[in-house]
Amino acid sequence: MTTARAPRRTGQVGRPGYDLDSLLAVAVRVFNDKGYDGTSMEVLAKRLGITKSSIYHHVSGKTELLDLALARALNALFAGTTEEGVTSGRYIDRLEHLVRRSVDILVAELPYVTLLLRVRGNTAVERKALVRRREFDEFVAGLVKEAAAEGDLTPGIDPMLASRLLFGTVNSLIEWYRPQRDGSAKELADAVVLLTFDGLRRSP
Amino acid sequence: MTTARAPRRTGQVGRPGYDLDSLLAVAVRVFNDKGYDGTSMEVLAKRLGITKSSIYHHVSGKTELLDLALARALNALFAGTTEEGVTSGRYIDRLEHLVRRSVDILVAELPYVTLLLRVRGNTAVERKALVRRREFDEFVAGLVKEAAAEGDLTPGIDPMLASRLLFGTVNSLIEWYRPQRDGSAKELADAVVLLTFDGLRRSP
Repeated sequence: MTTARAPRRTGQVGRPGYDLDSLLAVAVRVFNDKGYDGTSMEVLAKRLGITKSSIYHHVSGKTELLDLALARALNALFAGTTEEGVTSGRYIDRLEHLVRRSVDILVAELPYVTLLLRVRGNTAVERKALVRRREFDEFVAGLVKEAAAEGDLTPGIDPMLASRLLFGTVNSLIEWYRPQRDGSAKELADAVVLLTFDGLRRSP
Repeated sequence: MTTARAPRRTGQVGRPGYDLDSLLAVAVRVFNDKGYDGTSMEVLAKRLGITKSSIYHHVSGKTELLDLALARALNALFAGTTEEGVTSGRYIDRLEHLVRRSVDILVAELPYVTLLLRVRGNTAVERKALVRRREFDEFVAGLVKEAAAEGDLTPGIDPMLASRLLFGTVNSLIEWYRPQRDGSAKELADAVVLLTFDGLRRSP
């Protein structure tokens, strides 16, 4: 028995209510709530209020949903690394630009980045994402090292540790940031830069 | 049928191999790996290599294990708030002292604090822990506000946001800290303080 299938990933399908983007948005919310491993296609279908076969109109299964969601977060983060503010100028300023862009991206893509940052590498798709995360971390570490070489880094700070802590600060946003309470992405980026570039302690 | 039970929480029981502390250590590792919700008493017993009833010699069930583990992390963190370095002196220095102590505690009690920081409030025990976490956060926010009032905070930084970011940085350690790679607790605390109190950017 052959069933006519709607073309995948067109962003439009026969079933009303969901295109791939809105389906992905719901799936990511469920993954973040229940954990990816704890989410079955049954659970997804129930939460979406559609049948499992309606989900298969869009994607081959939950693995593909995870892949698409992680790629969305990673592509957004990597896009930040190719902007002019990150590819020219003094390295300390490039680093600041990347921190600001990363805060923007975390705020704009919060559920997707949250999913990415919780990935532990249990499946091939997750391990692929971890490899790209590591590439991003190494890019950041490279900027910090160059800033140190240009003499713009506070003396005594280890570049590797500094880059881990710096993005530890940025990434911590997913744990506590609430737009209503904690202000806009711009205010948040200003606060992150003030803390991590100028420091809390008022200069004498 | 009545079975003689070893006294609970004595730290010593009839079964060889586990006292409450070592049982708790394994349980916390399993909770961190599989998630608390995803860990059954069967899974715990298997991982411990003992029977479920041997676990019941020590605790009433997995809820009590969670409660004990979260209390251990919280008690350690709160102990830091009553040290002399945090109860006297200028507030900016009290804050620095608490940050250093908190880094020490995270490193010393890493699995317990990891469990604490992943709690989402799905059960009464978790909600109780979240209430205490909030008290800790408010204590930190209080120090930051007083430091601002004493004129020791970098101008333009919002005290509430600063305290969230500061402990966001500290708490991020659970995601990436590896003792072999990232140095001792002392080196780590120095780096955290250098980043968040002095800032990355070398003063002109």
